[in-house]
Order: sequence, then structure tokens, then C-alpha cells
Amino acid sequence: MRVLGVDPGSVVCGWGLVEGRSGERRYVAAGTIRTAAIKRGPSRLKKIHEELIRVIDEFAPATLALERHFIAANVQSAFRLGEARAMALLAAAERGLELFEYPPNEVKLAVAGHGHANKEQIKYMVRRALAIDSGEALATDAADALAIALCHCGRTRPAQFVESIERNRPDSRRIAP
Amino acid sequence: MRVLGVDPGSVVCGWGLVEGRSGERRYVAAGTIRTAAIKRGPSRLKKIHEELIRVIDEFAPATLALERHFIAANVQSAFRLGEARAMALLAAAERGLELFEYPPNEVKLAVAGHGHANKEQIKYMVRRALAIDSGEALATDAADALAIALCHCGRTRPAQFVESIERNRPDSRRIAP
Repeated sequence: MRVLGVDPGSVVCGWGLVEGRSGERRYVAAGTIRTAAIKRGPSRLKKIHEELIRVIDEFAPATLALERHFIAANVQSAFRLGEARAMALLAAAERGLELFEYPPNEVKLAVAGHGHANKEQIKYMVRRALAIDSGEALATDAADALAIALCHCGRTRPAQFVESIERNRPDSRRIAP
Repeated sequence: MRVLGVDPGSVVCGWGLVEGRSGERRYVAAGTIRTAAIKRGPSRLKKIHEELIRVIDEFAPATLALERHFIAANVQSAFRLGEARAMALLAAAERGLELFEYPPNEVKLAVAGHGHANKEQIKYMVRRALAIDSGEALATDAADALAIALCHCGRTRPAQFVESIERNRPDSRRIAP
């Protein structure tokens, strides 16, 4: 099972691929999509979408894993994060990938053993879990994306399929902030 | 100048086209993209994106106009709205449309003469401004989209081009909530 983890952001979007098979996790590839040089927001989104499609077409993952956020610094940040996330959701739907979402502290717990690990700790544990040589560059956002993919691979209870519609139902309590 | 107004939503996304030329505004077409029957959120986004691209390819507008929101009921609503908006932003970037955004009360002011008009008043004024016969069905979300297109056509001061990057700059004060 090949899993693409994505850590979306409008300026830096991290991605990372993990092959998970019978308890083993193997590093496939990781990288970042950087859009700081692009002036207009919509063109940034276009670039994120294009690059994610390119990664999916090159590495053919079956699954896309994302963090599910419950908080944002403010409403504008939530709009921006929603826009960047939407590029991953769209790419998954266009290429027929299964989609799973995990709360950030569940990702940290799965990778670092506790839900409040910082980014350096996450990167260290991702390198260790996937035997990524210290000589190989690994951007923080790419490490975060690998952590999400690892979290998905490492679930022991049945993974929960995301019925995103539930998030849109006013009567849904599952995702109340 | 043909303007596509879009009123994004993950369940109902309204769109409306207005041709604006030397003070005259002509109704071209309007409609809604309804995704309630689609269970999964990512597939809804895919449908919104596909339909917006279809509308753009059929009617060839030069410009896409959107509302720029500053508030949301909560962070989850902001994420969902950001995701739906992103489909319009992406479609605009993919088809090379100019993008403009207006605050909701500016749209209401432009169409109904005051910034607190309700949806029925907006629909009434949109019908009147564009001479849409009362026999012709006009969904509320389609009327809202036409109102945004009318707002863009009706600007007398130079329209402000959206440099969306500014929204992403932490030091930007223009869009502070």
C-alpha cells in the first residue's frame, strides 16, 4: 500500500510517499511545492494542484492522507488553509485516491510517541522510522507530510474512511470545533 | 466585457454571467451547481471545479468576480468555504481569467442600494437590473452570483485587481479581520 501524505500550505506544501506492507514502512520519495515566487494566490493554487497531480501520476499512490485541522489562527488563515487543502482533496478525487484525515496530535502520537512533539522531533523520528540518511536533505514540510503518511500506515485499529459530507452536515457533532 | 460571478458553497454553488458594455448590463446566463447528492466532500469539489470549467469554456468570460469574506460562523465553516472558493480560484487561474473580489456589503450596496439587503431584495433587484422575466426561474444562489457580477460591472472607481498574495503576507493589514 503506497500512501501519499500531504501537508498543505499556500506558500509551502509538503508531500511524502511511504510504502507500507505487513508492518514494514519504506521511504519512497518526498518534497515540497514552493510558491513564494508566484505573486497571485490563484496561480499558487494552480501550481500546488499541478504538482500534486504530477506526484500522483509519477508514484501512483492508492491513498492520500491529510491532517484534519480543528483550529486556525483566525478566519483568514482558515480560508487560506482551506484553499490549499482543497487542492489535495481535488487531486485525490480526480485520480480516484482513497482519502484519510487525521488530527495533528494523532499524527504526532503515531510518529513521536506523544501528541505535542515539535517539528524537529517529528523530523528526527521520521528519519529514523524510514531510515532516511542524515546526508539526504529533508525539508520540514516534507517530513511533516511523511509523518502523516506514516500515521496512516501505522494505524492498528481499522482506518476510518473520511465521509467528508459529514463535516458539512449542521447536525454532525463529530467535527464540532 | 463578460463577467462570471460565482457564489461558492460546498452544497450549492451559484454562478451568473453578465455582459457589461458602456453602462449597459445584459443578462447572459445563470445557474447553480448542486452537490447534495454526492456523498464525499472531495467529489463535491471535483464536481464544482468541472462545472465551473464547463461554464467558462461555454461562455468565455474574461473576468471572474467573487465575494471576499471576512467572517465565518466558525473555523470549520471557514475551511469548507475556503475549499469551495478554491475551486473558483483554480478555474480562474487555469483559464486565465482576471479575478476580482468584493466584500459582501459592497455587492449589496451596488445592487440594492444599501449594504444590508436580504436575499429576496437582492434577487428582486437583480431581476430588475437585468430584465429577467418573472416567468424565468432564478435560484437564490444564482441571483447572488449575478449580483456579484453586476457589482463588478457597476464599479465607477477603477476596479481593484486582487493581488491575492497580499492576503498571505503576515504584515498585510488590508484584510485583517
